[in-house]
Amino acid sequence: MALASRKELIKKCLRGMGLDALVASSFPSVSHLAHTNITTQKLIPDRLALVVWPKESDPTLIVCSIEEELVQRESTIRDIRTYIEHTESPMQLLAGLFQEQGLNTATIGIEETVLSARYYKELVSLIPKARFVACDRELARMRMIKDDAAIKVMKEAAIKTDTAIAASFSAAKPGMSERDIAQLLRSSIYGSGASEVSHLLLSAGENTQNIHHLPADNTLQPGDLLRVDAGGKFGNYYSDLARTVVIGKPSVDQLNNYRLVWDSVQTIIDAVRPGIQAKDLYSIYEARFRQRGQFLPRLNPHVGHGLGIELHEQPLLEPQNTEILQPGMVLAIEIAHPDKKRHLCHSEDLVFVTEKGHDILSRSRDWQELLAV
Amino acid sequence: MALASRKELIKKCLRGMGLDALVASSFPSVSHLAHTNITTQKLIPDRLALVVWPKESDPTLIVCSIEEELVQRESTIRDIRTYIEHTESPMQLLAGLFQEQGLNTATIGIEETVLSARYYKELVSLIPKARFVACDRELARMRMIKDDAAIKVMKEAAIKTDTAIAASFSAAKPGMSERDIAQLLRSSIYGSGASEVSHLLLSAGENTQNIHHLPADNTLQPGDLLRVDAGGKFGNYYSDLARTVVIGKPSVDQLNNYRLVWDSVQTIIDAVRPGIQAKDLYSIYEARFRQRGQFLPRLNPHVGHGLGIELHEQPLLEPQNTEILQPGMVLAIEIAHPDKKRHLCHSEDLVFVTEKGHDILSRSRDWQELLAV
Repeated sequence: MALASRKELIKKCLRGMGLDALVASSFPSVSHLAHTNITTQKLIPDRLALVVWPKESDPTLIVCSIEEELVQRESTIRDIRTYIEHTESPMQLLAGLFQEQGLNTATIGIEETVLSARYYKELVSLIPKARFVACDRELARMRMIKDDAAIKVMKEAAIKTDTAIAASFSAAKPGMSERDIAQLLRSSIYGSGASEVSHLLLSAGENTQNIHHLPADNTLQPGDLLRVDAGGKFGNYYSDLARTVVIGKPSVDQLNNYRLVWDSVQTIIDAVRPGIQAKDLYSIYEARFRQRGQFLPRLNPHVGHGLGIELHEQPLLEPQNTEILQPGMVLAIEIAHPDKKRHLCHSEDLVFVTEKGHDILSRSRDWQELLAV
Repeated sequence: MALASRKELIKKCLRGMGLDALVASSFPSVSHLAHTNITTQKLIPDRLALVVWPKESDPTLIVCSIEEELVQRESTIRDIRTYIEHTESPMQLLAGLFQEQGLNTATIGIEETVLSARYYKELVSLIPKARFVACDRELARMRMIKDDAAIKVMKEAAIKTDTAIAASFSAAKPGMSERDIAQLLRSSIYGSGASEVSHLLLSAGENTQNIHHLPADNTLQPGDLLRVDAGGKFGNYYSDLARTVVIGKPSVDQLNNYRLVWDSVQTIIDAVRPGIQAKDLYSIYEARFRQRGQFLPRLNPHVGHGLGIELHEQPLLEPQNTEILQPGMVLAIEIAHPDKKRHLCHSEDLVFVTEKGHDILSRSRDWQELLAV
């Protein structure tokens, strides 16, 4: 997104919330507002990076001195201030900035789902007359709508990830281990241009019972389900897909369960269009599975989520969420459901909300029938 | 560590701090206290997992319902309670537990560098008569000392990572890209048994100026430095190493800078023994480089850190840290320093603190001289 339109969005947000300034501290918000990618922000969360955006003046980026070279090169924010880790407190620097800008008694937005209790308490003690207001949801909402450049990257990322999954499934044979298939898939995702494989959950047979199973040394057996939930970071954006296949001949139970999951995901996708609420998509799942006596909210507390700079973004497709779908959103739509052996089938596709409805981004091949590999 | 001795350690910590109970919420603390590995705790930080450990009774593990199957199987904690994400608040569940155990007016330890301001404020409003005390440092200190089983895993992890780096460097040739070498290294770390490559920062030539550069498409040129800082998760423990080599013939400047960095790291390692303070190791770096007019605290705010379940653990080897080294600690010791072209040489080794001194864990080969590949 161009700097000018980002500035406009942020000003609108500040005005709308009655804020004098906001302080972003989450990885996605700092990435989005400062147009930079500080990877250590995730690895070492205590090493704060902050964007301060006042209503009336230009933004400031506060980072650890180690990251100065990176942000000088990448960021669109020109006022960069640094602290020396362990020796200087980023909150002291922040309080000094508020002092300098006459914001000591201002109303300030913070990301209170991310800022730690310790830093929050330090900030309150340093500028006790300021008023702090949570702006997490508003910053998350700013990231929901993707521009054309982002959509282009996410579309390519989705197809590349699906292609990599299909290729690794084609190579799967009885006797290979979960780790073998995972290694193939990982190389393929990196090989297609990802800078990071964010998650690679892969399981076969009994292990499919654990939704977040990490690939292990057990070998594939004929008749096993093989299930993967994986994604990578391409440019600044994530992919996230789940697919299930069967090794050799499927059982009737496996076929029926796959059809149930596939058709349910497809019914939700068919309903995606601007104007409906996020929770309406959850209701489709709830109604279908309640009717069968198989509604499993403990396994499926949501049926998907927004995707972008972060793996789970707004809108979360959960039963309470009244967020209205808008053109430009990218949604991951997913359902996991157990067969009679309690082995999980999991299907997840990526959908782009258009002016009139939606486009499916993630199908490099036809997955409608349970694929025997 | 056996459950009995872990229980003893925690009781001692609770007594020492005058706490009635503690609530752990960080990934490393929950992994350590509950003996489990909930990977989504890192991917989706808002999906809380909590260990509640009262002074007088058995601990409780609170997780999102999605993770119930995993922790039932892995955790040594038998009282497991679950909340449905988006629908139920984990803080409500926590407050209910305190009510049930008569801890409404108790003194409770929390990890305030990790627990978010939002959850903290919710907790305070739910049990307003309780007193909350930060116990971050105490929980981190419990993880500093590794038992024999952990040391065995970490020793293997260190050698495997170093071997993988050496192999990928041996394959490096002019014309290959940073991404090519990174792909080889990544496959090799996973191939040697890692479940995760936590970081793989790799740069050549000009790009070495950026300490946290991600591998890109530029190709290696004769005379370039090639630098890597990488680690993986083996079992529940990380490795973390940095190595620098040169493509083809090194310059005198490169040789001199490599020797300076290597000798300085080695001097710090030589000083590692029980009884000294963490900051004493930083002083060695500071004294040597101040003398040369090349002390760079902005680039090296620490000269290493503890390593274990987390990438940066206590003791951090920074100028303020009075933590005393003890047998059983594993330390990463590292220095990065620019040559005259401002290209960074970076060297990092892993050291185990023994009763009498230390063992170096991470050298699969001799790296004392700048290696030309």
